[in-house]
Amino acid sequence: MNNTQTTLSYEELQETWPLLSSDERLEGFRLLAAADADDFFLSLATRDQATLLFSLPNGERRLWARVLAPDDAADVIQETPPEERDGLLTLLDDTTHTEVIALLAYAEDAAGGLMNPRYARVRPEMSVNEAISYLRRQARERIETIYYVYVLNAQQQLLGVVSFRELFAAFGEQQVRDVMHTDLVMVTEEMDQEALSLLFAQHDLMALPVVDAAGRMKGIVTVDDIVDVVQEEATEDIQKIGGMEALDAPYLQIGFAQMVRKRAGWLSALFLGEMLTATAMGYYEDEIARAVVLALFIPLIISSGGNSGSQASTLAIRAMALDEVRLRDWWRVVRREIAAGVVLGAILGAIGLSRILLWPTRTQIYGEHYLLIGFTVASSLIGVVLFGTVAGSMLPFLLRRLGFDPASASAPFVATLVDVTGLIIYFTMANIILHGVLL
Amino acid sequence: MNNTQTTLSYEELQETWPLLSSDERLEGFRLLAAADADDFFLSLATRDQATLLFSLPNGERRLWARVLAPDDAADVIQETPPEERDGLLTLLDDTTHTEVIALLAYAEDAAGGLMNPRYARVRPEMSVNEAISYLRRQARERIETIYYVYVLNAQQQLLGVVSFRELFAAFGEQQVRDVMHTDLVMVTEEMDQEALSLLFAQHDLMALPVVDAAGRMKGIVTVDDIVDVVQEEATEDIQKIGGMEALDAPYLQIGFAQMVRKRAGWLSALFLGEMLTATAMGYYEDEIARAVVLALFIPLIISSGGNSGSQASTLAIRAMALDEVRLRDWWRVVRREIAAGVVLGAILGAIGLSRILLWPTRTQIYGEHYLLIGFTVASSLIGVVLFGTVAGSMLPFLLRRLGFDPASASAPFVATLVDVTGLIIYFTMANIILHGVLL
Repeated sequence: MNNTQTTLSYEELQETWPLLSSDERLEGFRLLAAADADDFFLSLATRDQATLLFSLPNGERRLWARVLAPDDAADVIQETPPEERDGLLTLLDDTTHTEVIALLAYAEDAAGGLMNPRYARVRPEMSVNEAISYLRRQARERIETIYYVYVLNAQQQLLGVVSFRELFAAFGEQQVRDVMHTDLVMVTEEMDQEALSLLFAQHDLMALPVVDAAGRMKGIVTVDDIVDVVQEEATEDIQKIGGMEALDAPYLQIGFAQMVRKRAGWLSALFLGEMLTATAMGYYEDEIARAVVLALFIPLIISSGGNSGSQASTLAIRAMALDEVRLRDWWRVVRREIAAGVVLGAILGAIGLSRILLWPTRTQIYGEHYLLIGFTVASSLIGVVLFGTVAGSMLPFLLRRLGFDPASASAPFVATLVDVTGLIIYFTMANIILHGVLL
Repeated sequence: MNNTQTTLSYEELQETWPLLSSDERLEGFRLLAAADADDFFLSLATRDQATLLFSLPNGERRLWARVLAPDDAADVIQETPPEERDGLLTLLDDTTHTEVIALLAYAEDAAGGLMNPRYARVRPEMSVNEAISYLRRQARERIETIYYVYVLNAQQQLLGVVSFRELFAAFGEQQVRDVMHTDLVMVTEEMDQEALSLLFAQHDLMALPVVDAAGRMKGIVTVDDIVDVVQEEATEDIQKIGGMEALDAPYLQIGFAQMVRKRAGWLSALFLGEMLTATAMGYYEDEIARAVVLALFIPLIISSGGNSGSQASTLAIRAMALDEVRLRDWWRVVRREIAAGVVLGAILGAIGLSRILLWPTRTQIYGEHYLLIGFTVASSLIGVVLFGTVAGSMLPFLLRRLGFDPASASAPFVATLVDVTGLIIYFTMANIILHGVLL
């Protein structure tokens, strides 16, 4: 222990935390005042709590491990290498130990893995006054919240819920069963955290009860844990849309090798797909040799398809993640995107055509047939943008239908898909419009 | 009112809600049992609450307008066309009317615009028992939560906070000032909702007090409102990353013209930028005419730059949004991305080189100099991928430095930026390696 007078404030440590090495973090943590250290430890991300715990000597480690609520302790243990887990479990007190073992049986991203098994509970036959003094005793234990009070029968089955405020505002002699709500939203232990976060967002709730198949209450999930989930899920989707595997760790903290691996996989896969463009181009080598001017517009045309496809796939991915659009809505989406593709393609086609027709040195650059080249480019743009929007919007549906994550329909994935088709559309248009003129 | 026996359950209406027209929604809402209607109305998105209110006749409209808490009423009024706002305000009771007017002065996306002015408050000199019975009276009013109890002096300045549970577990004769926490996190009325959501995520809090410059408490923001904010902000970022303006409305609900406008702007801007590729290609027309084989690899090379740039910009945008990376960290990021770019470029270069060297018909497709062409492609890939990762990761920093949203560094934007450079890198490499051979 550091015996000098130097102390550090909560804010100072929090500000510098991301920049500190593991040893500096330990040193900084020990410089906190006792009251701050508690709050600071609880505010840390699970990963940092685990690292800090393991940098502490045994006695202190036990102390801090016991500060954690059962659901947080279970999360820390899930962050710990398997061979260290038993050591950490033995540090906990008996009750928490049993609760944590039970929680570890659930998937980390299911309601069972997020829930806290300690919650406020009363019996339906209690009077409001009895319930309040019973809760007063429970409040001295480490329950997560007394905001919602759950009404359970002797078999631990969930009958209803009453907010503490309502209980508090009710008349003391009324029975709990007369003030409780029975139309309550509850979730199963297996519910996925993404579905859970949508429920929280839709209902503006502070907590949701988790029940098993027999209706027995197992714990509560509170909304403060859901804020993290929503951010985590959005980060995963964003990174997938960017064309890589989700990193699952902050950018500056993930190891270099691991980060490169998560990027190299998709990048190589996309590269292999994009090799088809070289094959496609091979088929049109003659056309390019006869009219080199056609090569000038290749990047412009294929990138326009990629851009419109990226917009469409991003819209579809996000709408599906927010449950605004379901699989069965695909037909409504495709009709909208066909219309959008035609309009957007026509806009780009018009810009491209004007650029070619109005350029002062048009005959020098594009030759005497600049008008026909202009029409080739404009009609290809309409085709490519239309194909991009339709393919981009439908790929997420296809992926979900096949059981994959729609977010894998990344901007680069869609662009790669559209590039080959874009080349085919462009050279087909050129062969039609320029036949007998340049080709 | 519908007088038949037909009723609809909460779940039935919620399931079909997104698919219903405005008239059908009204009809469905009126078929709900009275107790369900209340919960249903409160669970609706602000936009839907506003539309539903305006489809009701005056008497019912007043009834439902008064169900809303002041912060929600203010949100509904902000969704309402300006000419209708006064009419809606007059429906509220006097207290709420005054509170809503005060809330409307704040920006919708600032703490002041999100807060509820009704919260649980006590005086520091009260005993715990006095505070509890004082709160019991407050609980009968429509305060947002009694989970956190705020300790204010006579000037309404915030001195401390005590969770209701702590108060409840404390001994009755203690003074509130002895059980309250004074190291509390508070926010100003102007704090942006994005910063606010990060605070909630970092501290795992249920509510945050909002104070003015003089330390006077103005209201509380609760975490259930923040779940929506986090989702909204992620949606905005995702749509910008996809290369368009944020829609600000669900995909199937936004008007077609409005959606096309939000996509056409960026798409046209990107198209104008991408026109530079046609100009750049113009400079290399001679090279292409002499060695058409070079044209084959153009889409492959520029798309690899775009894909690696899209990964890098997405990572940087998300890390900045989560405050994992700040402006001053740019140097750490650029060093990481240079290393990542070299490694990723080398991987793609090796794949590209093997494909060319090991292909059975290599001399037919690429001519006798396939080895030199292979090296041109491989070295260009390293250069292009390196440029892509560096440009992609730095563009969000540059945008934030200039006061723009880093999320505008979309995958298509980065790809467009990299395409022109990619062409220059490729043809420069070709001129060096193939000089005197093919060129």
